Amino acid sequence: MVSLTPNPSFSLTIRLKLPNYAGMLAKVTQAIAEAGGSLGHIDVVTRTRQDVVRDISVDASSTEHAEQIVNLVQALDAIEVIKIYDRTFALHEGGKIHVEPKIGLRSQDDLAMAYTPGVGRICTEIANHPERVYDLTIKSNMVAIVTDGSAVLGLGNLGPAGALPVMEGKAMLFKEFSGLDAFPICLDTQDTDEIVETVKRIAPVFGGVNLEDISAPRCFEIEARLQQALDIPIFHDDQHGTAIVSLAALINALKVVDKESRIGDIRLVINGAGAAGLAMARLFRKAGVTNILVCDSKGIVSRDRADLTPQKQQVAVAEAGTLADAMRGADVFMGVSVPGVVTVEMVQSMAKDPIVFAMANPVPEIQPELVSDLVAVMATGRSDYPNQINNVLAFPGVLRGAIDCRAEAITATMFLNAAHAIATLIPESELRPDHIVPSVFDKRVAPAVAAAVQQAARDAGVARN
Amino acid sequence: MVSLTPNPSFSLTIRLKLPNYAGMLAKVTQAIAEAGGSLGHIDVVTRTRQDVVRDISVDASSTEHAEQIVNLVQALDAIEVIKIYDRTFALHEGGKIHVEPKIGLRSQDDLAMAYTPGVGRICTEIANHPERVYDLTIKSNMVAIVTDGSAVLGLGNLGPAGALPVMEGKAMLFKEFSGLDAFPICLDTQDTDEIVETVKRIAPVFGGVNLEDISAPRCFEIEARLQQALDIPIFHDDQHGTAIVSLAALINALKVVDKESRIGDIRLVINGAGAAGLAMARLFRKAGVTNILVCDSKGIVSRDRADLTPQKQQVAVAEAGTLADAMRGADVFMGVSVPGVVTVEMVQSMAKDPIVFAMANPVPEIQPELVSDLVAVMATGRSDYPNQINNVLAFPGVLRGAIDCRAEAITATMFLNAAHAIATLIPESELRPDHIVPSVFDKRVAPAVAAAVQQAARDAGVARN
Repeated sequence: MVSLTPNPSFSLTIRLKLPNYAGMLAKVTQAIAEAGGSLGHIDVVTRTRQDVVRDISVDASSTEHAEQIVNLVQALDAIEVIKIYDRTFALHEGGKIHVEPKIGLRSQDDLAMAYTPGVGRICTEIANHPERVYDLTIKSNMVAIVTDGSAVLGLGNLGPAGALPVMEGKAMLFKEFSGLDAFPICLDTQDTDEIVETVKRIAPVFGGVNLEDISAPRCFEIEARLQQALDIPIFHDDQHGTAIVSLAALINALKVVDKESRIGDIRLVINGAGAAGLAMARLFRKAGVTNILVCDSKGIVSRDRADLTPQKQQVAVAEAGTLADAMRGADVFMGVSVPGVVTVEMVQSMAKDPIVFAMANPVPEIQPELVSDLVAVMATGRSDYPNQINNVLAFPGVLRGAIDCRAEAITATMFLNAAHAIATLIPESELRPDHIVPSVFDKRVAPAVAAAVQQAARDAGVARN
Repeated sequence: MVSLTPNPSFSLTIRLKLPNYAGMLAKVTQAIAEAGGSLGHIDVVTRTRQDVVRDISVDASSTEHAEQIVNLVQALDAIEVIKIYDRTFALHEGGKIHVEPKIGLRSQDDLAMAYTPGVGRICTEIANHPERVYDLTIKSNMVAIVTDGSAVLGLGNLGPAGALPVMEGKAMLFKEFSGLDAFPICLDTQDTDEIVETVKRIAPVFGGVNLEDISAPRCFEIEARLQQALDIPIFHDDQHGTAIVSLAALINALKVVDKESRIGDIRLVINGAGAAGLAMARLFRKAGVTNILVCDSKGIVSRDRADLTPQKQQVAVAEAGTLADAMRGADVFMGVSVPGVVTVEMVQSMAKDPIVFAMANPVPEIQPELVSDLVAVMATGRSDYPNQINNVLAFPGVLRGAIDCRAEAITATMFLNAAHAIATLIPESELRPDHIVPSVFDKRVAPAVAAAVQQAARDAGVARN
């Protein structure tokens, strides 16, 4: 893996015992700095006349790097490493979400209302009036986060248990950013028919489904069949979340370089023809981009090629060639692929004021530092560079809006409107090359996206509420 | 339905405006009392020189009864009913559980540890060391509450949405009484094969499965096949929860009437040959009761009968006859059937010091008042009579124990030990005819049951932790 800058995903807390005299802590911090670690909090645990025990938080860039740092500190004279504590692992102990009652059960009266016999009245009401399930149960606020673990982050096919930490994290994000409850469904099957069947069978409890980390092309069929079979919104975040947020960023980037009115004329290259890349191509076309070249590992997805899936055929163009050919004269490059595939020369070959979104995670298609003088606007998937393209700007609001209006279907217009809603949150006066999308912590984002989605649902006549 | 005493499952809050002078409230309370309503809290909402607005909580015995009460109050001179508020329905608005993050996501550092990129380290760790899923995810504390809605309480086949309020209530009970997280899985299928398949596919997220409100005989096959297929504990509460708690109560009731040492000689009648009745028969036999007569709607489950399912055949006896025949000379009657099927004469025909557990819900097989002079010990499923036989004494502790020791299987010895653990919580000195089981709010119960289950798991070699 390409080396990363130190970041909190490799964060340690090192508990040290140091002699209690001047200069000892400086020795430690200097050693850490020399090893390339990034210092965080330094706390005193106990202090005697002889010794000080301190907790020192350090971000490293990899597991190996973390070990190097610890080894260097351990080698220091007179300093004792008491304990090493991996903050990321510690945070995951026992999982990251829990299920809580909304009211306590402290008396027989509570039990009689929340459980038997009182609950029987609620069950009967729902059996007689099925739509009441939305009022009297968790359904109206509950999302199933469904995965088969076949394409976990950029890590590949880790299976359902290996995917669970991501799904728990997603559930946290849903709650934090939209107030929706969400629960992980990690399926012990990677068969398309079985996934569709299973989700249909568990659907009664859920107001919406977020498909996650299911590999292409199965994800397209699963999404389409579930949307057909169920009357609740089905959203595949890896496709549409990425498409929405990258479109929002594209709209604002085009404003920055004054090409907004020429969106129909720009040449746009998407590298990566998986779930995200294909969904982006479809949504960008709907947004008015006509000249889109999608590339996969074999180069431009061209009509000449005999190896295309039906989904790739839909985005195929007359032009053929390599990624480098595609980028020549391009106004925009969008990477949802792998680290390091874009060279400085490729960026140099782009049209004036190139826009480069290198969104491979965690290591982008090209390191921003290498082309900072060449690009007009640069974005990545990372939080430690400007312009982070993060799906969390989209999915909480999309499902919030779709569930609140009980959308029978999810439409491309919802995605288009959501992208415009996100873009509009940055007024022209605040637009800068390094500020084209709102922060993920901007509280206005999810409500704006939800409102845009609801409006689109009403316009299309798919809102039932 | 047989008339009930007023209870909180039909609880109203009536908001009234009354003239502000003496005697007005008395007029209201008297009217409610005359209508048979049971008064709860009376609160003042606002008060002026002219008027008082009050909220009056009233328990009724049925929806119709609640309407009668409101009509009577509305007919009173000078008193205005402003609003009527059904407390049970209000409590269920929006459902009864929610999913919460264990930590807030307030900064990029939080995101980087709980979600990408940090979460990738956790996913990889689990993919490489599958048993780590128990340490690093919700699995080690998460129960699936699985139903197909085919036998919801005593209400019948209400389907998955109609069952959801019960499953939410069960999730509340799990959290409140054992600290386990639990999530409702309400299946849109009543096909045995499909239920088994579906639970297998969603199992990776769960540390245990509680089957609930699935009708007999499908429930037996589903339980057995899941236990075979999965390496996590599978517990069907309608069977084993009821069996455990009624055995605990039986043990103590036999002590009260001094028949404990003669458990092998007693004649015990179980009325109801569904999930609960059959599981009780099996567990009681394991506890040493040899003379057990199970009855269904056609009378004694006798070897002569040609209409028996395989499960009923296992409990069939040589004797034949009606329920009344079975009860003649019986030491113990246990009903898990329907209201009103036991007569005073039947109880009179029982052996000396009859023990009667009339557990049909909400209306027992015989009203306790009718036989209070005849029985030595009486129990029901209700909270408004002594000796409530409530599954909540069993299921939280059973699954807590089984999950904590990562039991590969659930065994009958676990149930036996759990029943003894519950029974033992009432010392001989505190045993009385009206006190044979601990309160559902007794905090000692779940830990005692969990410990008993873990011990049984270790003894049987099925504990993996």
